Order: sequence, then structure tokens, then C-alpha cells
Amino acid sequence: MNHQDWVRKELKEWCLSLGFRYTPLKEIEDRIARVRARMQKQGIDSLLVIQKMDFYYLSGTTQDGMLYITLEKEPLLMIKRELERAKVESPIRNVAALNSTRELPSLIRDCFGTLPRTLGLEFDLLPVRDYLWLQDLFQDVRLIDASAIFREVRKIKTPFEVNLMREAAEIGHKVYQEAREILREGMSEIQFGGLLEAAAKRHGHEGLLRVRSLNYEAYTWHVLSGASGGIVSQSDSPMGGLGLSPAFPVGGSRKIIKAHEPVLVDFGTCYHGYQVDETRMFSIGRMKKRFLDAYSACREIHDLVLEEISPGVNCEAVFLKTLRLAEELGYKDSYLGPPGLQTRFVAHGIGLELGEPPFIAQGHSYPLEEGMTLALEPKIVFPGEGAVGLENTLVVTRHGCEILTQADQDIFEVDGG
Amino acid sequence: MNHQDWVRKELKEWCLSLGFRYTPLKEIEDRIARVRARMQKQGIDSLLVIQKMDFYYLSGTTQDGMLYITLEKEPLLMIKRELERAKVESPIRNVAALNSTRELPSLIRDCFGTLPRTLGLEFDLLPVRDYLWLQDLFQDVRLIDASAIFREVRKIKTPFEVNLMREAAEIGHKVYQEAREILREGMSEIQFGGLLEAAAKRHGHEGLLRVRSLNYEAYTWHVLSGASGGIVSQSDSPMGGLGLSPAFPVGGSRKIIKAHEPVLVDFGTCYHGYQVDETRMFSIGRMKKRFLDAYSACREIHDLVLEEISPGVNCEAVFLKTLRLAEELGYKDSYLGPPGLQTRFVAHGIGLELGEPPFIAQGHSYPLEEGMTLALEPKIVFPGEGAVGLENTLVVTRHGCEILTQADQDIFEVDGG
Repeated sequence: MNHQDWVRKELKEWCLSLGFRYTPLKEIEDRIARVRARMQKQGIDSLLVIQKMDFYYLSGTTQDGMLYITLEKEPLLMIKRELERAKVESPIRNVAALNSTRELPSLIRDCFGTLPRTLGLEFDLLPVRDYLWLQDLFQDVRLIDASAIFREVRKIKTPFEVNLMREAAEIGHKVYQEAREILREGMSEIQFGGLLEAAAKRHGHEGLLRVRSLNYEAYTWHVLSGASGGIVSQSDSPMGGLGLSPAFPVGGSRKIIKAHEPVLVDFGTCYHGYQVDETRMFSIGRMKKRFLDAYSACREIHDLVLEEISPGVNCEAVFLKTLRLAEELGYKDSYLGPPGLQTRFVAHGIGLELGEPPFIAQGHSYPLEEGMTLALEPKIVFPGEGAVGLENTLVVTRHGCEILTQADQDIFEVDGG
Repeated sequence: MNHQDWVRKELKEWCLSLGFRYTPLKEIEDRIARVRARMQKQGIDSLLVIQKMDFYYLSGTTQDGMLYITLEKEPLLMIKRELERAKVESPIRNVAALNSTRELPSLIRDCFGTLPRTLGLEFDLLPVRDYLWLQDLFQDVRLIDASAIFREVRKIKTPFEVNLMREAAEIGHKVYQEAREILREGMSEIQFGGLLEAAAKRHGHEGLLRVRSLNYEAYTWHVLSGASGGIVSQSDSPMGGLGLSPAFPVGGSRKIIKAHEPVLVDFGTCYHGYQVDETRMFSIGRMKKRFLDAYSACREIHDLVLEEISPGVNCEAVFLKTLRLAEELGYKDSYLGPPGLQTRFVAHGIGLELGEPPFIAQGHSYPLEEGMTLALEPKIVFPGEGAVGLENTLVVTRHGCEILTQADQDIFEVDGG
């Protein structure tokens, strides 16, 4: 049997036996129907889906390729390298080899009889060079920013997606259960973070976290102990940590974790592309009362938000309530970052990418909707001393919300000190 | 002391004690001089550096910001979030806070007295949306693709950069020394990969590998055993492996590593942003003669390229020699991938990003130059059975080359089977 025949005949069964789940046709059809409704509303008659997570969301595969969608006919999946594997992974049946981007117009004409009048593209990420190249290829076609379509459709998760996030949360749960056995006095932050990640991978974590951004990078070894919890860095986050160098100035560093310090572990897990985010506190021996009190405040703010969350509730209003509660509890200048660098969000949407909409944040005055998924992360920072925080990923349900991340919310205190 | 004062006074010493190295002013000045020479040649009077690795290369920091360079005056470093930390990390002294991108023209006018006539941008990665926004902000300025400037200047490494790559290689060396103790019968590919990565992090590996691409993702747990070595995926690589799901269909999978299988470990290490790439073969017990012979062939091809490499040598010519040798040795249909999916390169440039120029590849007819760094990776694939290969990272020297990656090139055979 030649290689391509083997891929066609054997790969799917093998991958299923190793835990792969493929996106069902019905799920893809429903997503495309929602995309088409928004295309119509925006007056776009075709979409070229290029960015990997949009492409996966609408095709079920991440093989190198593009997806072309019109308002009516079956979408066209075009694959550059491993066509046979893409056919195994995607339920879309209209598939063609794309040997060169230059062939795009002729492939589309062959399949649809005509070129589009308007072509929607992901302007929020598509490089200028590719855009100019497409302008040249599609000279009489109007290229339009369709980023909002993906953002809007993807922000409401289907039960299929929420189940994958539940599986990601289950991996996180196992990691936190093992973490107590991993942490030892004398370990560096990066060493602890690396071992947590190794445990997560063993349980099926995919390793890379994804963000929709040119420059922002997400990672899983965000372990900040003592004073590194007070260090801010490149990201719009209450704390960034030291990291390992000016080229990677975030997350775990070579700092040795000492007894009685607050150790903040902000750990993301990824399963079939779906991410959950979860923060828990650790200490070797008991941490100082100041941090214990601040952690109680984080839990109080966290629980306030949980009570508020429900479809129809305004995101900004919830955020402002947390500001008032933090102030009442005495954390006005330390809530969500050190003075002058405090962030203005307490929860961010999450799914195939970190930092998707919605945001429970200042300036985000829109209602929550059923099926939205959020990472809720109240944090308190004492510059020069340390940071504490709690984070859970949740889904907005018909009448409230359900927490997906299941690790024990008490501080993980290990012997020592 | 308030937080910002503390960062100003204490952060540098603390980070130095944890192993940080900062880019010296002289190094930055030399790089900017080389950039300016190319700006002049291309008729560009100013550059706005946005992409993280270009920004780090020319400023020494990766704090959120942009760098504005003209042909004469001191460059302007603009920082969005942690200004004080950026000042600690970058030797550039002309630094300003950038509260909003909207302020860019006025900041530039204040500092340089005038707006540029032409503004060079990274068209190869800059999102269309940002480009249109800059067009709007700089209405009488011609926006020009300056991607080639970064690509060309960065492809020749300075001794400072090569030393950082040597340090990355030293981390890889330690990981391979420990790997023999980590691999056990019954482990899954991803479990082995995760533990290798945890070891690397403990030695200072930064975890994320970077690629200059919208969709391509690099990672360090590329462990392929037996038949998974014959599986091709999204990347332009001889083999991709199964991965964990259709969302991450590359690298280590949950497949259990069996005795006598060839186990290919392609492991990248990153130190201060600088990467090296290194592939070694493992087996539990002895692997079959077929794979041992193929591995010997990879070493022979590898050594042929080493002998050829020297400034002035044509990249494509070297690649074609490896094709002829592979054919002579009986691997015409298995060299660099399964039939129909064979790749057309045997070495790629490497540094701050994987897959930088130069490439020892078909269609890449240009000369090697002193200071170029390459990952040389001859590989042989038997579909349905397994893959073998060897990879080292090297620097082109005045009269030849020097291998940076130092792990033993013999097969790592552990007891079992």
C-alpha cells in the first residue's frame, strides 16, 4: 500500500485509538450557517478563511490550507501539503489541492463558476503582504474586513465546544492534584512550571496556548513567587513576573521559591485547541497573614462576580462592582496590579484563543450571553512582596454560570519552612 | 520606595543575579548602522519596528512598544506599558511613553521636528488593520515594505549573538545527556517530550520557539516513534507526527514508545531569544538494521554538507549534492519525506526565529556568508515504519563552519526490549 492510501485507510482509526476527536459535520454546518447569517448582514458574498483557529473552527482541520465560503454552495477546502490527512480530519467533502496561492482564482472559478464581488478577510491578523498579493490576484473584487464575523460567531460556544473545554479543565484538575507532590523547597520558579507542564502534557495538554495577536505570546509556566509577583511586563496583565531574559521577560524565572512566600500559579491547559485558564496559590509552609487576607478578598470578589453572571448582565457594570468591593476591602491600590499599572479587566473570554470576547472590563458595556466562556481572575499585587489571586474558567448558562475548572480553591500548602 | 522607583533601582541587579544578559549599546548601535545602510539603499527615510523579534534585535527589550528609526538622529523607543522596565532592558536612551497609537505622529514630530516622507514597515507580518490605521495616521507619508531589511541584516549573526546560541546549545547538550535516564519503555511520545522540555527549562530554556509566520507554530516536544515518524502534517517538514488532536496534529502523541522502534527527537532550545535545533535518535534496545543503515546515510549526508560549507558556496548546489548522495546510497524515495511529500531543503537558517534565511534548498541559489547560522537536518522516512535523522546547528566561519550543538551523534540506545 502506498503512503497516501495508508493515510486514507488507517490514519483515522489509529488517531481515534489515541484519543483524537473529530468535529462532526453537523457542528461544522451549524457554525457555517451562523457565519453566513453575519456575512449577509455585513453584505459580504464570500469569505476566505486563512488564520489557523478560524480555519479549524470552520473546517475541523489545521492542515496547511484555506477555506472559501459563499452564501449558498458547499464551502471549498483547499489544502497545500497533506491533502489526504486533511480529508481524514475535516467533514467538508468539497476538497481541492492548492499547489500555489496563485491558483486561488482559477480554483474558485472552477468550483463556483464565478469570482466573488466582495471577499471577506481577517484584517485583524492577515499580513499586509498577503493582502496586497490577494488584491493583485482578485483585481475586481472588493476586499473587506471580516474579522468581526469570526469574533462574534466564536464567542458563543456550542455544547460540543464546552465539552472540549471541560476535558481541558479535567487535565488542569489532575495537574493541580499532582502539583502538591511536585513543589519542593529549593526549586526555581521555572523548574516548578516546567514540571507542571510535563504533567499536563502526560494528561493530554497540547502545550501551546494561542492568542490572537501579532506580538503577544501565551505560555503555561506562569509561576511567580514572592517579589516576582509584583513585577509587571509586556502583557496587559496585573503581573508578568521576571521570566528568563529580556527576550522572554514573563513567567517563571530562575528565582528559587522560598518558604512562606506566596506562590501564584496561573496555568492554562489546552485540549483539541480549547483552552481553560486556572490560577491557584501555593506556599511552602504558611504564607504571611497579609497574603492570606488578600487571597480571601480575591475569593470574595470572585464569588461576587459568580453571583452576578447571567445572560443579559452588563459586563462593565460587573467590573465596576468588583472595583467597589476591592476598595471596601482595602485593596484599592493593589487590586489588579501595582499602583499606576493596574489593569482594567477582571475576566476575559477564552476558547480557541486566550483573550477572546467578552471582557468583564471597563469600557466593555455589553450584555453577557448564554454560551459565552470566561476566565475570571481577581488578583491583588503588593510590589516588592508578592501577589495572590484566584482564577476559574466558566460558561454562562441559561440562568447563571457553571465553573469548568475544578481544582480545590484552598491554598495548596506543602510542608517546609 | 514606590514601585517604579524600585524597578529603576533594583530590578537590573536582581535580574543579572538570575542570569539575565542585556544587549550592550555598542551591539545595538552596530545593528542600527547596518539597518540604516539598507534603508539608504532602499530609499526609506524612516522605519517603524513593531514585530517583537525585530524590536528586540534593535532595542534589547521586548516590552510592549515600537521603535522609530531615521537615518541620522538617535532612534526613539516608545513603550506602552512598563516604561521603567524597558529602560532597564534597553540601552537606547531616547525613550517615551506611548499611551495610544494615536499619539505616534505627535511623538515623532516632537522628537524629530518632522514626519517622515517614507515609512518602512514589516509588511510580511503587520496585520492589514494596523496598516490601514497607520495609513490614516500618516496621511502624507508613503508606507513601504521594509521586511527585507530585517531579514537581510539579521541573517548575519554577530559574535554576541553566536555566543547566545552557544549557550542555547549547551542547554540542549545537558538535555540530551539526561534524556537517556528519562526514556523508559511504556512512556508515550508526549510524556517523553514533556519531560525533556521540563529538563530544558530547568537549565534555562525559554520554552517558546518563534517562527516568522501567521500560522506556523514551533514547539519542542517533537518526539516521533515508529510509524508516527512516517506521518506528514501541516509544516513543510519531512515528517510531522501525529500530535494530540486535529487542532495540534504535530509532534509527540499519546502513542506508547515500543522497544526496537526508531525514536526521533527533534528538540529546539531557546536562550535569550536565540534558538538552536538538534535532532538525535533514540531506541529502547537495538533498532532494526534498516534504520541503523538509514541513520548512517543521514550522517554521511550531514558530513558531506559540513565539508562543503564555506563562505561563497552556493546553497542550491550543496542541496543538489545531497540529493545525488542520497540517491547513490539508495534513499532516493525516502530522503526528506515520504514519496510525493518530500521537502526540498536540508538546512534552514536559525536565530531569533526558526526558518530565517539562508536555506540550503532547491531554488535558493545564493552564496553562504560568514556569520550565517544554519540547522542542518538530513532525514529519511519509511512510511508506516519510522523515520531517522540527525540535526545540528552550525555557524559559517571564515574558512568553513563550526558546529554549535554538542550532543553525542551516536544513537542513544537505552536498555529494554
